[in-house]
Amino acid sequence: MLEEALRLARAQRAQAEADLVELASIPSVSSLQAHRDDCRRAAGWLAGRFRRLGLKTELVDVRPDGHPVLVGEWMGRKGRPTLTIYGHYDVQPADPLSEWVSPPFEPSRRDGFLYARGASDNKGQHLAAVKAVEYGLAAGGPPLNLRFLFEGEEEISGPSLGRFVRAHRRRLHTDYLFIGDGDFVAPGRPCLVTGMRGLLYTEIEATGAAADLHSGLFGGVAPNPLNTLAWVIATLKRPDGRVTIPGFYDRVRKPSPAELRSWRRLPLTAPLVKREMGVYALEGEARYSPIERRWARPTLDVHGIAGGFVAEGSKTVIPARARAKLSMRLVPDQDPDRVLRSLRAYLRHLGTPGVKLTLKALGSARPVLCGSDHPGVGAARRAFQAAFGAEPAMVRSGGSIPVVTDFQEALKPRLLVSGFGLPGDGLHSPNERMSLDQYHRGTEMMLHLMQELAGAHR
Amino acid sequence: MLEEALRLARAQRAQAEADLVELASIPSVSSLQAHRDDCRRAAGWLAGRFRRLGLKTELVDVRPDGHPVLVGEWMGRKGRPTLTIYGHYDVQPADPLSEWVSPPFEPSRRDGFLYARGASDNKGQHLAAVKAVEYGLAAGGPPLNLRFLFEGEEEISGPSLGRFVRAHRRRLHTDYLFIGDGDFVAPGRPCLVTGMRGLLYTEIEATGAAADLHSGLFGGVAPNPLNTLAWVIATLKRPDGRVTIPGFYDRVRKPSPAELRSWRRLPLTAPLVKREMGVYALEGEARYSPIERRWARPTLDVHGIAGGFVAEGSKTVIPARARAKLSMRLVPDQDPDRVLRSLRAYLRHLGTPGVKLTLKALGSARPVLCGSDHPGVGAARRAFQAAFGAEPAMVRSGGSIPVVTDFQEALKPRLLVSGFGLPGDGLHSPNERMSLDQYHRGTEMMLHLMQELAGAHR
Repeated sequence: MLEEALRLARAQRAQAEADLVELASIPSVSSLQAHRDDCRRAAGWLAGRFRRLGLKTELVDVRPDGHPVLVGEWMGRKGRPTLTIYGHYDVQPADPLSEWVSPPFEPSRRDGFLYARGASDNKGQHLAAVKAVEYGLAAGGPPLNLRFLFEGEEEISGPSLGRFVRAHRRRLHTDYLFIGDGDFVAPGRPCLVTGMRGLLYTEIEATGAAADLHSGLFGGVAPNPLNTLAWVIATLKRPDGRVTIPGFYDRVRKPSPAELRSWRRLPLTAPLVKREMGVYALEGEARYSPIERRWARPTLDVHGIAGGFVAEGSKTVIPARARAKLSMRLVPDQDPDRVLRSLRAYLRHLGTPGVKLTLKALGSARPVLCGSDHPGVGAARRAFQAAFGAEPAMVRSGGSIPVVTDFQEALKPRLLVSGFGLPGDGLHSPNERMSLDQYHRGTEMMLHLMQELAGAHR
Repeated sequence: MLEEALRLARAQRAQAEADLVELASIPSVSSLQAHRDDCRRAAGWLAGRFRRLGLKTELVDVRPDGHPVLVGEWMGRKGRPTLTIYGHYDVQPADPLSEWVSPPFEPSRRDGFLYARGASDNKGQHLAAVKAVEYGLAAGGPPLNLRFLFEGEEEISGPSLGRFVRAHRRRLHTDYLFIGDGDFVAPGRPCLVTGMRGLLYTEIEATGAAADLHSGLFGGVAPNPLNTLAWVIATLKRPDGRVTIPGFYDRVRKPSPAELRSWRRLPLTAPLVKREMGVYALEGEARYSPIERRWARPTLDVHGIAGGFVAEGSKTVIPARARAKLSMRLVPDQDPDRVLRSLRAYLRHLGTPGVKLTLKALGSARPVLCGSDHPGVGAARRAFQAAFGAEPAMVRSGGSIPVVTDFQEALKPRLLVSGFGLPGDGLHSPNERMSLDQYHRGTEMMLHLMQELAGAHR
């Protein structure tokens, strides 16, 4: 299969790009009610592809207000191993719209990149795999069994796929699980992820007076929910990067000496990271390297604060209420539920007398360790070498893929977590993009991976 | 003059009420372009009155897009002191219209009140003074020189009157300046305002990375402008109400023992203030009484924070920038310019290494002490006693009346800041009203005041 499939992949790049443009045109923003139908449309577009490829295809609504899980299976190699490929068809909101050079849902090719919301996260990445299977099937069929398992709630940490996986352990049995939702370390330097940070995403509401107050009349006695929120946030994380929630660091596991050694060889130096972010200084815990801070240390960030008067000019209002969204990135072996409990208890002591604080958890994901010594790792190493001319570095991911925990617990697969994105793709930012070269080579890598996994499996 | 004038005032109450109905029927909303002509109409109505009384009358357009300043003078007592009476003929917008029992510009008498937008703020109050002068002139002429100085930009903090006053210091020389734009402490309890807090209104912008970042990828090393702003705000004012700007309290002048004694007799207790605000606890500097905190202590409040993701759901963004609006209420003898300089210098040490902070001043007003021992105070005390049967309490105002600074600096008058409104008049709210009894007694008080000032002046 391999040679013929690779030939097809190279011959049909224009069509593959047209496919990505189509998929990335669908504004499948899972967090916005207004885009509910668009999410279904993206899932439907992929399901249509699966059916045309002859896959056994199923769109499953796991919960009433969720977005469907999409399964596509080809079980044509009885007795051979099964590879499941994960992806998510939902995308982040595109705002602020004004900062996009071209509209987020009108994919635009510039300098070898396709610019669109979701181009790299995750449509370009899972479509690369779909294209590989298309070529493999056209070239006589892949050498192992295949399953796509796509979700539409990744960006909202929704529970549908997790529930689905837990409810269908037997049916979804798989030997390998490939998750391609990440970046290269640098151009030409692929990686395999050996661990991921977890997440606890919360919202704190602060309520003061019964109505907005005039700061001239009441300033000095009035509770100010914005001042109180600022105090709470400033107390939760000090400027030196230390999170003050009691017990927060108790279960933080040190990276292995081998990981630390491998990380020191990576080109992720402080100047490079600064350039990538466009900042003139890094922040965070100074006694840990920038790599450790991103991969193996927990942290806390505010994502938004709402409340009061923010239009042009000045209004001397003391707002009656304010809200902050803030999340904690967690590392093995921290437990989101435990951290949530500590935070809740801590907040009781953190407020001010006239302001009521309410904590809501909006989502969570456990931190994950993937393992780095199963046969799939060697296969992936060889597949990357073949498609990109480089061996993958062993890295971790600072972000979370919440469903990995469900996979791990329900299916116990050999995990391969990797990806074809590049630093600078601008995930979650304006002007997100996918390198078209990465997209096409990603397809070739998936073809090699199927071949290698079939061969490596004992 | 006095006896005859008082007799006239009592005999002509029906006409005085008809006058107020006429003036309050004019929708002189200064903030709305659509009511521009109505503002001029209100000024014209008053100017017509002045001319009929024989006052030297002038309507002055200080700036092209402003509302005119109105001057009316009677200088018939050469060698005697001059009393200038301030007022503003503009009113707040009337919305929400649906909450008015009777239409805002069709004045309606109910239970001894006249309901109309502007009835108490400020038409009923300055018309009470105009009526007093009318009766005084009819009764042989007031015992001192008189000037009305009315503006039409009070509700929009417009600059016209301030500029006019500064440009005509000599011509506007006055011994006393009466500002009647306030409330009684309670029915039957008039007051004299002996000081007003000043204001410094600022905006702080915090800039981190070149674009929004993903907190999974960069959390732990990325500067977060929202976290930094929270830190800055939390540091600027501690939860115990203490502002930490270096030197902030250096020039804070203690209220006089007489003021403190008088405040202790006021019915503004903590439970009452809590009920008024709708809170279950007061905040601020515990070692000062609620009255002191509102009137004689400086403070700092955040009015709004903008930045990041605040819509429904969760987005793990580290925003590239964030802004906060915050103001400081200042008390005598703090100086807004000096506080601004300290704040600017302080901010240089307050941020975090990767976040740039920019401070902008959006407006300021100096704190004002009116003086409580000049001869006008005794005169006002006796005038209130005569007209309302009660001595005025010595109070302060927590808010600012910016034009007072212009008056003070340009004219150095003896200030009398008071008013005939009642708590519950609903200034700026639907169903604003003026007590007709307060209106009539206000006229009598002004007659007594003229007499007393003429007698008290050495």
